[in-house]
Amino acid sequence: MKAYEIQGAFGLDNLRVVDRPEPRPGPGQILLRVRACSLNFRDLLTIQGQYNPRQPLPLIPLSDGVGEVVEVGERVSRFKVGERVAGIFAQAWLGGEPNQERLRSTLGGPFDGMLAEYVLLDQQGAVRVPDHLSDEEAACLPCAGVTAWAALTKYRQLTPGQSVLLQGTGGVSIFALQFAKLLGATVIITSSSDDKLQRARQLGADHLINYHQQPDWEKPVRSLTDKLGVDHIVEVGGAGTFERSLKALRAGGFIAMIGVLTGRAAPLSVIPILMSSITVQGITVGSRDDFEALNRAVAAAGLRPVVDRVFSFAEVPEALKLLERGGHFGKIVIKLD
Amino acid sequence: MKAYEIQGAFGLDNLRVVDRPEPRPGPGQILLRVRACSLNFRDLLTIQGQYNPRQPLPLIPLSDGVGEVVEVGERVSRFKVGERVAGIFAQAWLGGEPNQERLRSTLGGPFDGMLAEYVLLDQQGAVRVPDHLSDEEAACLPCAGVTAWAALTKYRQLTPGQSVLLQGTGGVSIFALQFAKLLGATVIITSSSDDKLQRARQLGADHLINYHQQPDWEKPVRSLTDKLGVDHIVEVGGAGTFERSLKALRAGGFIAMIGVLTGRAAPLSVIPILMSSITVQGITVGSRDDFEALNRAVAAAGLRPVVDRVFSFAEVPEALKLLERGGHFGKIVIKLD
Amino acid sequence: MKAYEIQGAFGLDNLRVVDRPEPRPGPGQILLRVRACSLNFRDLLTIQGQYNPRQPLPLIPLSDGVGEVVEVGERVSRFKVGERVAGIFAQAWLGGEPNQERLRSTLGGPFDGMLAEYVLLDQQGAVRVPDHLSDEEAACLPCAGVTAWAALTKYRQLTPGQSVLLQGTGGVSIFALQFAKLLGATVIITSSSDDKLQRARQLGADHLINYHQQPDWEKPVRSLTDKLGVDHIVEVGGAGTFERSLKALRAGGFIAMIGVLTGRAAPLSVIPILMSSITVQGITVGSRDDFEALNRAVAAAGLRPVVDRVFSFAEVPEALKLLERGGHFGKIVIKLD
Amino acid sequence: MKAYEIQGAFGLDNLRVVDRPEPRPGPGQILLRVRACSLNFRDLLTIQGQYNPRQPLPLIPLSDGVGEVVEVGERVSRFKVGERVAGIFAQAWLGGEPNQERLRSTLGGPFDGMLAEYVLLDQQGAVRVPDHLSDEEAACLPCAGVTAWAALTKYRQLTPGQSVLLQGTGGVSIFALQFAKLLGATVIITSSSDDKLQRARQLGADHLINYHQQPDWEKPVRSLTDKLGVDHIVEVGGAGTFERSLKALRAGGFIAMIGVLTGRAAPLSVIPILMSSITVQGITVGSRDDFEALNRAVAAAGLRPVVDRVFSFAEVPEALKLLERGGHFGKIVIKLD
Repeated sequence: MKAYEIQGAFGLDNLRVVDRPEPRPGPGQILLRVRACSLNFRDLLTIQGQYNPRQPLPLIPLSDGVGEVVEVGERVSRFKVGERVAGIFAQAWLGGEPNQERLRSTLGGPFDGMLAEYVLLDQQGAVRVPDHLSDEEAACLPCAGVTAWAALTKYRQLTPGQSVLLQGTGGVSIFALQFAKLLGATVIITSSSDDKLQRARQLGADHLINYHQQPDWEKPVRSLTDKLGVDHIVEVGGAGTFERSLKALRAGGFIAMIGVLTGRAAPLSVIPILMSSITVQGITVGSRDDFEALNRAVAAAGLRPVVDRVFSFAEVPEALKLLERGGHFGKIVIKLD
Repeated sequence: MKAYEIQGAFGLDNLRVVDRPEPRPGPGQILLRVRACSLNFRDLLTIQGQYNPRQPLPLIPLSDGVGEVVEVGERVSRFKVGERVAGIFAQAWLGGEPNQERLRSTLGGPFDGMLAEYVLLDQQGAVRVPDHLSDEEAACLPCAGVTAWAALTKYRQLTPGQSVLLQGTGGVSIFALQFAKLLGATVIITSSSDDKLQRARQLGADHLINYHQQPDWEKPVRSLTDKLGVDHIVEVGGAGTFERSLKALRAGGFIAMIGVLTGRAAPLSVIPILMSSITVQGITVGSRDDFEALNRAVAAAGLRPVVDRVFSFAEVPEALKLLERGGHFGKIVIKLD
Repeated sequence: MKAYEIQGAFGLDNLRVVDRPEPRPGPGQILLRVRACSLNFRDLLTIQGQYNPRQPLPLIPLSDGVGEVVEVGERVSRFKVGERVAGIFAQAWLGGEPNQERLRSTLGGPFDGMLAEYVLLDQQGAVRVPDHLSDEEAACLPCAGVTAWAALTKYRQLTPGQSVLLQGTGGVSIFALQFAKLLGATVIITSSSDDKLQRARQLGADHLINYHQQPDWEKPVRSLTDKLGVDHIVEVGGAGTFERSLKALRAGGFIAMIGVLTGRAAPLSVIPILMSSITVQGITVGSRDDFEALNRAVAAAGLRPVVDRVFSFAEVPEALKLLERGGHFGKIVIKLD
Repeated sequence: MKAYEIQGAFGLDNLRVVDRPEPRPGPGQILLRVRACSLNFRDLLTIQGQYNPRQPLPLIPLSDGVGEVVEVGERVSRFKVGERVAGIFAQAWLGGEPNQERLRSTLGGPFDGMLAEYVLLDQQGAVRVPDHLSDEEAACLPCAGVTAWAALTKYRQLTPGQSVLLQGTGGVSIFALQFAKLLGATVIITSSSDDKLQRARQLGADHLINYHQQPDWEKPVRSLTDKLGVDHIVEVGGAGTFERSLKALRAGGFIAMIGVLTGRAAPLSVIPILMSSITVQGITVGSRDDFEALNRAVAAAGLRPVVDRVFSFAEVPEALKLLERGGHFGKIVIKLD
């Protein structure tokens, strides 16, 4: 079978298509014929060696993929041949709170990921995906979907009538927009593009802020929230936006800390955290239980993930470059034949 | 009656003893004859104008005091003359989650505080204190005691067998040490003084780290916790110690962010927060419900707050200077006649 | 001013219109000109002496009413003359968990209630109501609305994709139906009337069960939920329906126990509770914080309470008889001139 | 190897020693040489056919056992040969909330249990036990220990200064007594035997009630708790004691519903549940995460489970008869050679 491997050293140039023997499932394992994968920023960092420089190589990248069960090992009770499943991001995190063992059990590094024609998973490490989704749509769920779901429901659940601030229009933010509307919340979203803001409005966004035109976006956020600040923020910017987020948040509010798109470290005053009794919660995707709760919500609502563009297996390098440039809206997907 | 006021401008030099008319309780109010007050770092910052530069003056400082009810207004049902009570830190925060209205209702700024012979409080803004405590000990509870209690129980309760890291031997840290032992936790405490560390051991501290001898204290913390990191940290250092705290904490761990003794802003990498699913929770003392839960625990355990030194009403400036120098262990108290 | 009083003894016949002096607000109090009240089953039980037989008389009944602030006492900061507010059910329960003191501070017994032309409240015991509501609609919120809100959000919040079982079409159940849809849940509702079931469908109910035609309604509930059982039940029937509810609930599910319409005591097997790790949570309305969260949700969604029928102040006895007969759908309201 | 089986039909008389082939571990599995087992009331009900009448036979009974890992299959990473482990009660419940799949994955029915010389477990279904415990002590933890731990910490954690009511001196109640003291709570315990009450006092019980002498034990419980009622109850009696428990509990209090020693069904008034905002939480042991949290607490405190009496493998029928008579204090253990 064909697979992509990072070979020898990190870097996009070292991502190669290889031929590996097709795996066979042992007891408790299932074999998937992969139909579609999706890209996350973490995958790009992994390939570039910035996510975990000590990751042994070769490595099959990508945490997210959906496939059909084509063979099951002995003692497999959760799945049958023919079912369509996605691998879960952290293979050992079935439920409960995160810990080191669970957080280190992730696909696409340290474990081989989904960018292959066939993938072997423990039956515990997969979930069925909603029937109404295309393969491309279903492939978007494991990392970005579960992250957005966890950010809005796992540690503090958004309540109808509350407000949430979303940053940009990447995969997590667009999922968060869709889920926030299911949860009955008011959504404020930022982008540097009026066009993307209009697309966000079509998905239900209530208030739009162009942060190029309004770099001090915490001010309109406070105006939109009776000067009190927003209830909930999904922070994807990292150190570069965090200080503004603290100003945009209400006393007692909640920040789901997810990404570092705008910077890894910055001089940061921590005083607002303590003066305003703020909660900052790091989010590392979520458990299988979280994924299953998401699936129920997606199925009940008939919600469809937003796919920006679909690439073929051969076009993976181009897909990664699009992700790196950052001009997308929603998710970038790889479709296998 | 006599009271201290910050007059005209901020600064220790502008703290003056004044003579004010003795207040009389209106409906729903109680009049206290103040017996003892305690000092918190926030009081010092307030007097220096660093806590809230827009605080109107004059202001009677100090959030913490205990007194005897000497007169009650109409419709007062919670207290009787002769009972000993403490004012609650945030007068409008009786229960539930913090919000702006509640967090801005605090004694010692913006409202007049306890450093006076007589103080008028709404009956809702006070609680009885445990009988076994001296006035000096009871005066330590409202800010530092409730803060430490909230840090260990309110958002995520320490469980027997878990570990907690405490920084230094100020009022909050020593309360946290005492409460952590009630909660069955293992305590690791840092100080620059071996003498203070030994005193901490007598109060039950399990592991002692002299951070002058061991500036990279996150390393022994990890060694003491099976390389996994500590479960819970009461962060009083602020930006200056936060980054080490992130390294000392286990994946999924909890940081109660309380103070900024070592710095207000510093270049900070937020990556460990998200990579390790960490919770950072700002703590602004707590509600009346929290104070009452603390009182039950203190009474049941016969716990006694640690008083470093007692000053007379006339010696308030000296007491504040001791607080500023920072050489104390536990709480600094003012005893009124 | 005119008011209704239960005089001398319990019973509908002892409910009399009296003339009382118009009250004046003391410090911290507000005076309301009452515009509308709503009836709850608890009011009927109170008048009949079945709710609290030791309730001293005379008593002005009814917990729920909305009015205009016509005068404010000294030190009132939360409201201005002209604002429209509702009294909160438990006057001393502003936030946090329920306790005896809070649960005994309720309007309409032990405290005088809202069925009067003018009512005096502590400023802490009232909240503004959403602008888009008529007086009649706003009067429905304090007891039935907050109860339904607490049942679905306070102890365990319904999540999009989860299912909830509602019993009948009284005030609480219809509010619960409206809130459950805001929360993204799937609603199964029971009634003895196909006509009412159709009205429930118009409000968003997903599955309808006529319990006259299907007395063992736990069976269709399980069929509708993949044989697993429903996630959440708002139990208004009491002992008479509780055992079926236990069978209709999934393992790990949640029952909000609210009312006893079908019986106070019955032989009950508690085994399913422990075998299936079920949570049974008694709900006694909620706090002011809960009411304010409800108001935000209602305002954001433009939700309108369902008023069955409006009676005049003179028609209160007839309104109570309609409540007793039980044929209503939603809330019964009294409109003052 | 030797094992006990329930053969052909339920009943103590059908419990036979059989010779089974020694199992060999497949991938992901570990083989235990069992050293000690403990008995739970559930085991007795299972053997008698009262727990799950549809349980297929033959069945090796007993959920609780500790053994040495003597062989590991391929891909086993959690354990090494020579380590001492206990099986977890529900093999599929590693963390998170209970659900049907997890609650049906229990040892000693429906899966074969621990009453055998060798037992095969999935590596995910076992935990290391604290070193300071004897085999007999460690064998007490999986069901009774984890149940008591979950009852006091999982859904609502006891806080220092709170009070808890324990019923009788069986395995769960004595573990709950020990854990409640670790948690800093005040313990009220009931028994029909003054001798057992004195033994409970030696373990830290604060207040003793002989329910033969005081059948209306809810009255002294209220007296001991300022007439407010106790904070927390571990209900092992079932329908026969539940109504008194409701009277003994404070408003807003918590009942962990665990057993049905005194009856399965009784006429029960549910009114106090809703009038007092009570939480009734069914407890079905707990997850692997709960077991590991317990182990940390037990290890840190050096806590030792209370073993009433140790029987040999040949004496299992006598051990079960002792359990049935109910005269024990703490746990009944089977020691294998």
